[in-house]
Amino acid sequence: MTRSTEHLIKDRARMMGPNVSTFYDDPVHIVKGDGVWLWDAQGRKYLDCYNNVPHVGHCNTRVVEAITRQASTLNTHTRYLHDMVLDYIERLTGTMHPTLDSAIMTCTGSEANDIALRMAEGMTGKRGIIATDATYHGNTTLVSHLSRSNIPNVGFGLEQYFRFVTAPDSYRTPDPDGTMFANHVAAQIDALERDGTGFAALVVCPYFLNEGFPDNADGWLKPTADIVRKAGGLLICDEVQSGFGRTGTHFWAHEKMGVVPDVVVLGKPMANGHPVGAVVTNHGILGKFRTGYRYFNTFGGNPVSCAAAMAVLDEIAEQDLVTNANTVGQYAQIRMNALKDKHSLIGDVRGSGLVFGAEMVTDRATKEPASTLTNNIVNAMRDHGVLLSNLGRHKNTLKIRPPMPFTLEHADLLFDTLDAVLEDMPPAP
Amino acid sequence: MTRSTEHLIKDRARMMGPNVSTFYDDPVHIVKGDGVWLWDAQGRKYLDCYNNVPHVGHCNTRVVEAITRQASTLNTHTRYLHDMVLDYIERLTGTMHPTLDSAIMTCTGSEANDIALRMAEGMTGKRGIIATDATYHGNTTLVSHLSRSNIPNVGFGLEQYFRFVTAPDSYRTPDPDGTMFANHVAAQIDALERDGTGFAALVVCPYFLNEGFPDNADGWLKPTADIVRKAGGLLICDEVQSGFGRTGTHFWAHEKMGVVPDVVVLGKPMANGHPVGAVVTNHGILGKFRTGYRYFNTFGGNPVSCAAAMAVLDEIAEQDLVTNANTVGQYAQIRMNALKDKHSLIGDVRGSGLVFGAEMVTDRATKEPASTLTNNIVNAMRDHGVLLSNLGRHKNTLKIRPPMPFTLEHADLLFDTLDAVLEDMPPAP
Repeated sequence: MTRSTEHLIKDRARMMGPNVSTFYDDPVHIVKGDGVWLWDAQGRKYLDCYNNVPHVGHCNTRVVEAITRQASTLNTHTRYLHDMVLDYIERLTGTMHPTLDSAIMTCTGSEANDIALRMAEGMTGKRGIIATDATYHGNTTLVSHLSRSNIPNVGFGLEQYFRFVTAPDSYRTPDPDGTMFANHVAAQIDALERDGTGFAALVVCPYFLNEGFPDNADGWLKPTADIVRKAGGLLICDEVQSGFGRTGTHFWAHEKMGVVPDVVVLGKPMANGHPVGAVVTNHGILGKFRTGYRYFNTFGGNPVSCAAAMAVLDEIAEQDLVTNANTVGQYAQIRMNALKDKHSLIGDVRGSGLVFGAEMVTDRATKEPASTLTNNIVNAMRDHGVLLSNLGRHKNTLKIRPPMPFTLEHADLLFDTLDAVLEDMPPAP
Repeated sequence: MTRSTEHLIKDRARMMGPNVSTFYDDPVHIVKGDGVWLWDAQGRKYLDCYNNVPHVGHCNTRVVEAITRQASTLNTHTRYLHDMVLDYIERLTGTMHPTLDSAIMTCTGSEANDIALRMAEGMTGKRGIIATDATYHGNTTLVSHLSRSNIPNVGFGLEQYFRFVTAPDSYRTPDPDGTMFANHVAAQIDALERDGTGFAALVVCPYFLNEGFPDNADGWLKPTADIVRKAGGLLICDEVQSGFGRTGTHFWAHEKMGVVPDVVVLGKPMANGHPVGAVVTNHGILGKFRTGYRYFNTFGGNPVSCAAAMAVLDEIAEQDLVTNANTVGQYAQIRMNALKDKHSLIGDVRGSGLVFGAEMVTDRATKEPASTLTNNIVNAMRDHGVLLSNLGRHKNTLKIRPPMPFTLEHADLLFDTLDAVLEDMPPAP
């Protein structure tokens, strides 16, 4: 049936719970997608500058055809033999360092992180996990504890195993070579070892997308990786947001940051919205997990999921989407810097490839976050037909992370609109 | 690419880990499916008497078309408004007791059980969970502890919260009205309360499919539900295997067992293999969870998942598959009992609707499990082109659980083949 916005919101509260989150003060009722475009129920068109799940574009023909073809042919679990899951793992691991040679396929990044944490426990015999204090890695009972914002004292007492380090912030607390962050990690490792928990793993998004994608130099994670390895722990890189060429310069953000992780976690964009995730690791860690834990995933690695995921890799390659991300990303930096010269609200411009944004401040000298104004900008952009979001500790960073077929023309529309919206904003109080 | 069986097995070990499970001594390389039929790479046809995930049949046209149509139109998360997720939850909860009025959509039954356990913690403020000693409910770190067979002392110390009761066994330990089982549960509740853990929930498949689907009378779970409620705990019914009309007499097995659960967990067959799961519960429990825990599932409830799940409900209704399950199930009991009269190997015949099977014994008087022979039968059936499996504490129960469009003719082929295979079996030693 087709409900009005009011009716949709009422029915959501009734059937999905009292506080199911929506984007925007005036939530959008989207009914159709194509490439980087979305349409609402009234036929209004929006430029999608935010959704990373449809990595190769909304309703990408190659992906839809792959799903249709395989779903019409066969869809079973991996207890029967099938080529597709092997073809895909071979292709996927072929994009990574040779030590990252094997994988477990799952349905979500949450499931993948849930496995990764057990791999760390299995390899180290310890349970202490370190993450940043401004991140999100998924929704299982165990994995949800990686979010410091998780409500304390619920979740089967698992908070005892988690420690947090201050997220990098290139704008306010420069750490040009990553040694400060490495030292923060070292301090938490020491604390875990001293209190008897023991250190098992550090989990990070190598480009820190939830933390506001600080302007970290290439190779920035090297000192941290050294400290993690010296302590006998695992480096888990959650590439759910940063991977598959998003940053433009590299296929994986961990390459950009100069490290080879022990475990790579994948999710959201992997199959363009079809529920697929994966844990990629080396043979030793995978073997230890497989013998030490009982694990089977009914849907994970099924032929349809693999066909969808393979089509995404094909599309990235054939449309040269990583190069596109690099080109458009560089242009976005130029246009954002031009807007910064014009609008004093913009305190900092950051990003790489097709993840970029600007931090809004009420005063460039004090760097006071313009949180409310940023929220107003996001809502005004939505009203002007451009979808994006804000994030960061103060919710004052515009987060722009469009589908990968985002072109220079789309960037122009985005920044022309942003320019007009910023023009209309009241001056900082 | 197309690999030989040997090559497939070698590549699986190399890329998926050293001990990835397969069915059958000679694993099957399936390449095509249609209805209740599967084909291997050599073009050989198999009658599928085991797979419940393709609930309305392999490659069901209605489901494939629904997926294709919606994947070509829009696939986004639920932070935008969309009718489909509401239409589906309304339709789904409409098949249940009026108190079960709301839901969270997930990608897997594991994710759904992971939420259900947190709902129990949230409602009771306690963490003690009871399950049977011969079950399986999923693969997250928390949920994997519901399987007693899980390897101990790994999984972040969560084993401390789990207690087990002896699974019902109508063949060896009759418990006609369920009071013995209820008393076992009561004893574990008492133990949890005494040791300070506290009782949060009992998790059961209402038809005990992993436990060997004992011959429990309708209403059998009532005494257990009474005890769970009196103790202030939640009754979580995992209907992943038993639901969507599988038992033929009822749409949900909890109805058959005479209880209204606090939480119903759904998974595998829900969208015919598309990764979809759900937790259905009442508004009070859902509200408490939503406010007490931070939860969002990116893929959960997306329009494609809902379209696939809706097509499954449509197909069940329009093909009258629950009636079919009942009819064919009754016929299966007749044919199995006839085989029992003929073959002394068969000790007990059980089932309801399209889940049925027989327990194999070397001696009907002692009921000594014929475990090796049962394994031989399963492999011989595979060699004769019929796919089924064995389960139970002694792995001596044939488990037959075909796609729901399984007809009387399919049943005849199954039982004629089984008759011939049993004929060929060496007499019990």
